Amino acid sequence: MAGRGVAERRIVKVGAGGEARPARDRLAVEEPLELRVAGRPVGVTMRTPGNDFELAIGYCISERLVAGHDDIEAVRFCAPEGQAQEYNVLTVDLRPGVPVPDPSLDRLAVTSSSCGVCGKSSIEAVRVACPNLAGDGLTVPSEVLAAIPERVRDAQRVFEQTGGLHAAALCDHGGQVLCVREDVGRHNAVDKVIGWAAGERRLPLAGMVLFVSGRCSFEVVQKAVVAGAPLVAAVSAPSSLAVELADQVGMTLVGFLRGDTMNLYSHPHRVTLPVPAGT
Amino acid sequence: MAGRGVAERRIVKVGAGGEARPARDRLAVEEPLELRVAGRPVGVTMRTPGNDFELAIGYCISERLVAGHDDIEAVRFCAPEGQAQEYNVLTVDLRPGVPVPDPSLDRLAVTSSSCGVCGKSSIEAVRVACPNLAGDGLTVPSEVLAAIPERVRDAQRVFEQTGGLHAAALCDHGGQVLCVREDVGRHNAVDKVIGWAAGERRLPLAGMVLFVSGRCSFEVVQKAVVAGAPLVAAVSAPSSLAVELADQVGMTLVGFLRGDTMNLYSHPHRVTLPVPAGT
Repeated sequence: MAGRGVAERRIVKVGAGGEARPARDRLAVEEPLELRVAGRPVGVTMRTPGNDFELAIGYCISERLVAGHDDIEAVRFCAPEGQAQEYNVLTVDLRPGVPVPDPSLDRLAVTSSSCGVCGKSSIEAVRVACPNLAGDGLTVPSEVLAAIPERVRDAQRVFEQTGGLHAAALCDHGGQVLCVREDVGRHNAVDKVIGWAAGERRLPLAGMVLFVSGRCSFEVVQKAVVAGAPLVAAVSAPSSLAVELADQVGMTLVGFLRGDTMNLYSHPHRVTLPVPAGT
Repeated sequence: MAGRGVAERRIVKVGAGGEARPARDRLAVEEPLELRVAGRPVGVTMRTPGNDFELAIGYCISERLVAGHDDIEAVRFCAPEGQAQEYNVLTVDLRPGVPVPDPSLDRLAVTSSSCGVCGKSSIEAVRVACPNLAGDGLTVPSEVLAAIPERVRDAQRVFEQTGGLHAAALCDHGGQVLCVREDVGRHNAVDKVIGWAAGERRLPLAGMVLFVSGRCSFEVVQKAVVAGAPLVAAVSAPSSLAVELADQVGMTLVGFLRGDTMNLYSHPHRVTLPVPAGT
């Protein structure tokens, strides 16, 4: 049985030697989600359906449309009168007295990561609004980090079926996986995890590890910083700007986490190494 | 020597058994690019510097901010008076008489892929504005498709160094690579290729193959449709919505193109298979 995150489709498989046969394939579902805050559209994202409320809450927090979870009164799907509910428009209602974000301003300032203004560096504009994580005393043995990708794969369900999804996960300092979320969009998977943490009253993510299954972009590091995660670990390569931001805000950034090897790109002191035998 | 697309950085490498050593690593550069059309900001993207003019032109065409290359008078970097040129703001000037796109409207209608309106399917809204590719008579032998990933890798320069970049390429019906572009953003690599084709007066991409190095999202298929490419081939998985759109507009979508095996997700008739020996 395919869930809402997986679609089955008839395809033609071409095998070695060019012989073709009809087959059934499982695809990661991608659907648009329009997000509204206090009735105003703030953005549309292509996402894998599932954990949509977490996605909405995580997006609002990580993009700083709201100051925190307490600003949010309710999240609900909406559909226009007389039309079918397609579960592709979500409305976030704010508590009385909470200022309604101006999406044009806020989105330019945040998701566009500042960048905009000629001559002003992206990093500087972002850093002003970011917490500094240097004081977070988390330390994690390298063996614990090395075990995370396998643990997350065990906890994933959709990825194995489709090969088309990104995963993000939250782990404690002992490497225990607290939450795994998947999406066709890397940033959506991260927002879902942050939204989960908000609901569990675990924000900021002090003392925790945010894991991502693929590459690590600036956007992912930015969301992690806003959520307060002191360590981000990625299976693949980070970008230059991701490393630069992590460096400046006191975050430990780990990349190419594969087998028991990894690269430490910034603030390596949080990763402790085994004492060599014989010392 | 690292080019503008590659940044060198000192890191700590943790090897098997937990031994750590300082190393130099090469990172894919990610920097914000603000795009303005006729003086109005239309968007900001995180991109790998390089081929920025192609990116701007390809973006304007694939997001239908302009009707075609002829609408564009010039593309230039801009910097505010008295500030340093950081090459992160590009202005596209339109020819006299060309209507200035309303970014809020156009971007909602296009990059958000319609999606917005409750009860209206994303696909339908997009399809109206898309060319139908069913009439494109391209056929490509499966062996020719199978050879493309290796040819593109040979033509790539940055990816091998950093492991952090997506590639997009344009190939003719014989599998010859006409253009390869790389970027931290999958969609940016596609826009750069489309922008190159615009400059070469090769739009629409009739009879050509658009290749992408990773997964194939709805956004990639949408850009390819607007540019008129009848066949898109990806190394990894397509999303459900990517397949749905390809199916509806008459595009052949090939996924998991690895070795001489591949999956044909839509309109498989354009991929011809070798005649089995003995027949």
